[in-house]
Amino acid sequence: MAVIKEYYTVKLHDTDAAGVLFFANQFRIVHDVYEQFLIRIGCSFRERFTVGDFHIPIVHAEADFLQPLQVGDTIEITLSVSEVGNSSFTLAYQLIDLDGWVVGNVETVHVTTDPASKSKIDLPDGFREKIQEFIEESD
Amino acid sequence: MAVIKEYYTVKLHDTDAAGVLFFANQFRIVHDVYEQFLIRIGCSFRERFTVGDFHIPIVHAEADFLQPLQVGDTIEITLSVSEVGNSSFTLAYQLIDLDGWVVGNVETVHVTTDPASKSKIDLPDGFREKIQEFIEESD
Amino acid sequence: MAVIKEYYTVKLHDTDAAGVLFFANQFRIVHDVYEQFLIRIGCSFRERFTVGDFHIPIVHAEADFLQPLQVGDTIEITLSVSEVGNSSFTLAYQLIDLDGWVVGNVETVHVTTDPASKSKIDLPDGFREKIQEFIEESD
Amino acid sequence: MAVIKEYYTVKLHDTDAAGVLFFANQFRIVHDVYEQFLIRIGCSFRERFTVGDFHIPIVHAEADFLQPLQVGDTIEITLSVSEVGNSSFTLAYQLIDLDGWVVGNVETVHVTTDPASKSKIDLPDGFREKIQEFIEESD
Repeated sequence: MAVIKEYYTVKLHDTDAAGVLFFANQFRIVHDVYEQFLIRIGCSFRERFTVGDFHIPIVHAEADFLQPLQVGDTIEITLSVSEVGNSSFTLAYQLIDLDGWVVGNVETVHVTTDPASKSKIDLPDGFREKIQEFIEESD
Repeated sequence: MAVIKEYYTVKLHDTDAAGVLFFANQFRIVHDVYEQFLIRIGCSFRERFTVGDFHIPIVHAEADFLQPLQVGDTIEITLSVSEVGNSSFTLAYQLIDLDGWVVGNVETVHVTTDPASKSKIDLPDGFREKIQEFIEESD
Repeated sequence: MAVIKEYYTVKLHDTDAAGVLFFANQFRIVHDVYEQFLIRIGCSFRERFTVGDFHIPIVHAEADFLQPLQVGDTIEITLSVSEVGNSSFTLAYQLIDLDGWVVGNVETVHVTTDPASKSKIDLPDGFREKIQEFIEESD
Repeated sequence: MAVIKEYYTVKLHDTDAAGVLFFANQFRIVHDVYEQFLIRIGCSFRERFTVGDFHIPIVHAEADFLQPLQVGDTIEITLSVSEVGNSSFTLAYQLIDLDGWVVGNVETVHVTTDPASKSKIDLPDGFREKIQEFIEESD
């Protein structure tokens, strides 16, 4: 099963006065990897805004924060597709430190919607295929 | 049961090129109300950093995004305590538009830890009482 | 000369591991007051995106950071118009603590541009008048 | 004269509903390169917080925004030291698109201060030497 892997080094602006990563930034950081995923399956955000035949809003997100992360910490972030439904798909992210410990994880649920009516639509065929091809790729 | 209510108007920097609130910012925005909560129960972040006898990291957070929010939209954010455990407490937030529709919600789980060992400790008595008093307040 | 005044309390997410306001956030925070200014002169961002007959990008910004700000600090932010040119206007912001000391300031230079060609255009007459009326208002 | 060069791809969260990079994020993004600079001269933020014999707050920052940047745009960011004074140093950053056009620039002025008194101190000798060595390096 295919996985995207990116390295990220925690920046000063990711942290807060408690000295560690501000929790909301964990969601922001994994979204960068989601943008890589969209590019990899041939469907960048830029194209999404131009073509605009469907939208992909996030309808649910959740995360666990297992270890505090400090400025300068480098982590590996992995993205995999954990579920594909009729009109939605779910992505799972792991944040792994350089010793191999999982220090956090995130899940995001995305639905496809009609840009005009904003109501849910089935995953467009071409898009579903691209996700399926990604899943079946070997790394 | 006590509830904190704050109004918030979506700022340009909260949105992204898709024209709506960037999902991670929903977590950031409700944390501002959590900071109000800490002040209201007499336990501000400033004090936390100074006294430092225990920490309160967030170990889990999740959110639903029910309606897209645009720059200039004003919402009411409510905070309530949904659970108090031995070494943790859970806060529930609702984002409500001016017509009374729930447009989003968030849940955050906080644990109390020892600053030195980073391991979980029971909610300190004084802190537990403050949370309990808040819950029992009438608005 | 008219001035907009807003109070702001520094949030945890505004700070970084150095314990004080992360410098870029001072620019973000004063932009919230600029959004108030646009609403006050009858020209909100929402309307800008809908009508879209001209854009108002920021072409220059600068700031002084005179005193470190910590989580929980409340400041007053003032906005005034410091210059109106042919195709640009300049806003000046002061950040003032509750004892009346100026702890920071920001200046932003805005130009009006044609949405299609992206090139500078003269301030549209109606917009120029709204800015002028604001300047001449007494508080 | 030594220059640090980093590539950066504009993320969705860097943009706003106007469809382009939110101006304050240009300051945030170049700070990431400053963090690289501190590591390169052997003086990371992590070390700064631990050793803590002097602080390096930013006292002034300014930027020009020459071309709008969109999600997915990749730019090169260069950092160079433009001035070293008794108790301050100034860094200059350029944002250059892949065709070689300068699309933005930033300048940040940093002073060295005593952690206890918060007053300005001369650049500590070891720190001044590290900056000087960086300047004299060939790329």
